[in-house]
Amino acid sequence: MRVAVLGGGTVGAALVGLLRSRAGELAVQSGARLELAGIAVADLAKSRPAHVPVELLTTDAASLVADPDVDVVVELIGGIEPAATLLTSAIEAGKSVVTANKALLAAPAGIGLRSLARERGVDLLYEAAVAGAVPLVRVLRESLTGERINRVVGIVNGTTNFILTKMAEQGADYAEMLTEAQALGLAEADPTADVEGHDAAAKAAILAGLAFGYDVASEDVSCEGITGVRSLDVAFAARSGYVIKLLAIVERVGEGGVSVRVHPAMVPLTHPLAGVRDAFNAVFIEGEAAGEVMLYGQGAGGAPTASAVIGDLIDATRNVLAGTTAPAPDRRPGRIHPVDSLRTPFYLSIDVEDRPGVLGQVATAFGDHHVSIRSLEQEGLAESARLTLLTHEAREGDVRATVSALSAIGAVRRVGGVMRVIGEESA
Amino acid sequence: MRVAVLGGGTVGAALVGLLRSRAGELAVQSGARLELAGIAVADLAKSRPAHVPVELLTTDAASLVADPDVDVVVELIGGIEPAATLLTSAIEAGKSVVTANKALLAAPAGIGLRSLARERGVDLLYEAAVAGAVPLVRVLRESLTGERINRVVGIVNGTTNFILTKMAEQGADYAEMLTEAQALGLAEADPTADVEGHDAAAKAAILAGLAFGYDVASEDVSCEGITGVRSLDVAFAARSGYVIKLLAIVERVGEGGVSVRVHPAMVPLTHPLAGVRDAFNAVFIEGEAAGEVMLYGQGAGGAPTASAVIGDLIDATRNVLAGTTAPAPDRRPGRIHPVDSLRTPFYLSIDVEDRPGVLGQVATAFGDHHVSIRSLEQEGLAESARLTLLTHEAREGDVRATVSALSAIGAVRRVGGVMRVIGEESA
Repeated sequence: MRVAVLGGGTVGAALVGLLRSRAGELAVQSGARLELAGIAVADLAKSRPAHVPVELLTTDAASLVADPDVDVVVELIGGIEPAATLLTSAIEAGKSVVTANKALLAAPAGIGLRSLARERGVDLLYEAAVAGAVPLVRVLRESLTGERINRVVGIVNGTTNFILTKMAEQGADYAEMLTEAQALGLAEADPTADVEGHDAAAKAAILAGLAFGYDVASEDVSCEGITGVRSLDVAFAARSGYVIKLLAIVERVGEGGVSVRVHPAMVPLTHPLAGVRDAFNAVFIEGEAAGEVMLYGQGAGGAPTASAVIGDLIDATRNVLAGTTAPAPDRRPGRIHPVDSLRTPFYLSIDVEDRPGVLGQVATAFGDHHVSIRSLEQEGLAESARLTLLTHEAREGDVRATVSALSAIGAVRRVGGVMRVIGEESA
Repeated sequence: MRVAVLGGGTVGAALVGLLRSRAGELAVQSGARLELAGIAVADLAKSRPAHVPVELLTTDAASLVADPDVDVVVELIGGIEPAATLLTSAIEAGKSVVTANKALLAAPAGIGLRSLARERGVDLLYEAAVAGAVPLVRVLRESLTGERINRVVGIVNGTTNFILTKMAEQGADYAEMLTEAQALGLAEADPTADVEGHDAAAKAAILAGLAFGYDVASEDVSCEGITGVRSLDVAFAARSGYVIKLLAIVERVGEGGVSVRVHPAMVPLTHPLAGVRDAFNAVFIEGEAAGEVMLYGQGAGGAPTASAVIGDLIDATRNVLAGTTAPAPDRRPGRIHPVDSLRTPFYLSIDVEDRPGVLGQVATAFGDHHVSIRSLEQEGLAESARLTLLTHEAREGDVRATVSALSAIGAVRRVGGVMRVIGEESA
């Protein structure tokens, strides 16, 4: 089984290392020797680990993919192009492909690739694309294939989970912890894709397909990042029995409807997702018969991601030898349910002028929009007061309308930290 | 695909319910209609849920298995016999089998069944046998098949985890919580198999096979239950940043060696296993490339267990249609590593007479046996004192020798709560 690797970065180098150091075991497991046919890289001159064989490097990815000696193509380039074109050629040539490319899989081009692979009877495997070494794709595709899944809630971005964990455990603020994450190599110089939730949104789109069979593109995912999370929100969460996590949520709504969203949320400390710390990822699945299932592991990094790719390579090899392919259930377009009509409890913090009558005005704004207050804390500041509230379950649209009404009150200085609460009143 | 179900208990009834209510989806997923051929029960007269078709009940399990119309046999009887004989007949007749029977799989008879299934080219699948709906078997067999696994640590018994969780969260004592677990149907009238760790030991034996390819029988598992865990141990754990869990641990020791053991342990609150509450199960896997992976879910109950069986049934069906079988790697006998030579930190609590010189005698007993004390708390009782200690990493044999030496000291009234600490100094 001759393997072409596209991409010579951290994951590519780790994969090449594993293919060489574990060659014997891999041959036993997969039923064939996995032989490296070539490694397509952008720059031949770049310095690489000693175990990467220089004689296999090439900058001509298209020729490597087209080489009739290549049986399976591993794509670790990322982004839409040239990855989409290269994978299309591979599949059209009847080669199975393994990819870790979440952006591509959550784009219309990726949706097209899936159909093409089915049509050509080859595998398109992507365990490494969502939550790295967490064996999510295979569990959803195989273990839970007979299960009706109602909801999947994931911590799928390690950078933001690291920042939020440190904010909670060290009482630090967002900017400080972002800087630390950058210093540790856990966040990019431009952290937008992570902290604004775009990376998590692509993974949420892929999860909707795996869990419900709906084709969802990342641009359809309602998305809010963690840049607005303040130390005071984190502190309130801690003293109220919560921890703030950035969640990717996909949820069945009625027949044929799906809610796909990414946002920070208050998670009860007793919830299994609350214990997912630092850069780890986890995905919490609610099935009708299986009940609650959670999968946890490293979401990124060279070796963990390469490990997930290896699992897929073994699968692809076994399938080629058996003349079969991994199950790839039918997909249909998902009808995206508007977030406005979703119901959860909410957390809000409101800075007001500290004078008589203000609390009444604030409470009235909630009541006028059918949002019922569950608990309220008032803290005096110099000339103002901060009201921190938890509501009962409320329609998101009603909460937004409440926030607009609040902002129109003269004595209200700021409405901040509007955040959903999960895992309590809502099932 | 005609399915025979052996066993009409809670799981059997739930399975029959799922096979009927989800027939359409299951046919799509597996590629063939899953048709119920018969349900073997012990007592035809027993009252059953309305969805169990009376006309399919039989007390003649052997004839049902032998029926040439039956393609796959699901065994939910439990225990060694008649399950072993029935599954042997099924496999010899070329039928794939699915079982949830941990006792059988961890017995020499189960080890024989695995070889027989390989020989006959049929599937022997058992996702439901360890940790119910936790998709452990498939993840170890497929996702992590290319991975070198060094250790697996599991909470695999829901009854004891429920009792320990309630002891920690309500400050209650063991006897009280055992009674509550029995009232809730979470513990049997005779709770021995759960509370003494025998159930977990069978699962540990199966885990050793899945993780390392070693055949281990449950009788070879070093096993200690939770009956000796006292409220004072639980309280010490809480104030020191730990929680006590009953763990099943399988660990590679050198080449060809394996340590397989079940015992209560102090788990740091920051460890993902610490958040596994109530009757939930979880398995924490340490792989060389993948790093830490944890799988969490319901370990027992009709619907969750039936859900795991359904996953296996779909697999078996797909494999029959594709003319293949699930990977069943070679096994070899595991060389069991004696627990005495394992090293972990330890917790001990020692009741002593409160008079001068005693602490010196106690400390000397530790030093004499090369056990180094990391922290010590002394609490005065009426006429005695309680010493609570954490040691640095120490050889288990040395700790046992220390305990013997302590017991020989006149002023030492009781040495209790000797317990391993995981996840800190030891890797």
